[in-house]
Amino acid sequence: MDEWDTDASERLGKQVHFLLEVDKLKQVYRQTYLLDQSRKENDAEHSWHIALMAVVLGEHAAESDVDLLRVLKMLLMHDLVEIDAGDTFCYDEAAQRSKLQRERVAADRIFNLLPADQAAEYRALWEEFEAATSAEARFAAALDRLQPLTHNCMTQGRAWQEHGVTEDQVLARNRHIADGSPALWRHAENMVQNAVEQGHLARSTD
Amino acid sequence: MDEWDTDASERLGKQVHFLLEVDKLKQVYRQTYLLDQSRKENDAEHSWHIALMAVVLGEHAAESDVDLLRVLKMLLMHDLVEIDAGDTFCYDEAAQRSKLQRERVAADRIFNLLPADQAAEYRALWEEFEAATSAEARFAAALDRLQPLTHNCMTQGRAWQEHGVTEDQVLARNRHIADGSPALWRHAENMVQNAVEQGHLARSTD
Repeated sequence: MDEWDTDASERLGKQVHFLLEVDKLKQVYRQTYLLDQSRKENDAEHSWHIALMAVVLGEHAAESDVDLLRVLKMLLMHDLVEIDAGDTFCYDEAAQRSKLQRERVAADRIFNLLPADQAAEYRALWEEFEAATSAEARFAAALDRLQPLTHNCMTQGRAWQEHGVTEDQVLARNRHIADGSPALWRHAENMVQNAVEQGHLARSTD
Repeated sequence: MDEWDTDASERLGKQVHFLLEVDKLKQVYRQTYLLDQSRKENDAEHSWHIALMAVVLGEHAAESDVDLLRVLKMLLMHDLVEIDAGDTFCYDEAAQRSKLQRERVAADRIFNLLPADQAAEYRALWEEFEAATSAEARFAAALDRLQPLTHNCMTQGRAWQEHGVTEDQVLARNRHIADGSPALWRHAENMVQNAVEQGHLARSTD
């Protein structure tokens, strides 16, 4: 084996190692129920669902020149940090405060399984997604919120009721959907209103 | 609501209906075990995993000008037909013969939940994937085979042994990986050879 082969083999080896490690995302369970309510969904299923949403709903992005390939890369990778850091329920305010620090440690480990150029590219995409500093990141983040919101609305608010979540919390936590897609936020507001009227989501108490 | 609003609302309504329907893919279980062997994986998890593989392994595609966005669209959608047609184990030759007809009926129903332009685009992408008529389809198909092959190799050949699959069947069924990526086929052949040497995959009996 010559020097080029050794380098190429080492590069593929790192990529394969990363792709085996990420299998663990299939065991990170979320608070959201499947639509048939048979069980909660996991991060791999959620990531697939929102990637498909990006393809189907791309025309509703706030900015017309959104690069869909960058959006898909972000969505396919955005939850990998939860392999180490776990899923943080979006209405758990105490856990939300420590979330970014825990996830950065996880990102250091997981992305660095890859060759250095890919580790740097994907780590930067993940930081961009978290900070919502681009049109792609804001659209991706909108879908990441819209999917569990939709599942809660379509399962009679089951996860909301289990955690005592109220309408004002839902609106505050999801309002940034509008930054990624005004059209999808209007749709989301209608769903939330309907959930309140049906008695699936508690009105604010104050 | 004026005419434009009605049309836009009907379009989004169809997209949302489709995106709710595809939640069922999370309940279509495959023969492949998760790497920790705690359970079999489902089609949504598999679809996420191979989409991420396409991003990470794109440099190994047989043709250098592969359009990664088209590959990702194919991979995110390629198994949706299994919501109706079920998963067909790739070494079940009788079921393989009826597979395409069953899946075409499913494609007619599922893609047509969408607005007509999207239904036509995604149906065509699925047919292209199935027929392997483009560089994108051949690379996508290579990943669709490489992932379960890898999982079988990394779980001591568990699914192979449960179904009495032998080395010659594995090589015949997966050889087309080379059409999508010669480099990944070399890697796959090495894994299969190792599985045979370890006693995890039966040598051919003839």
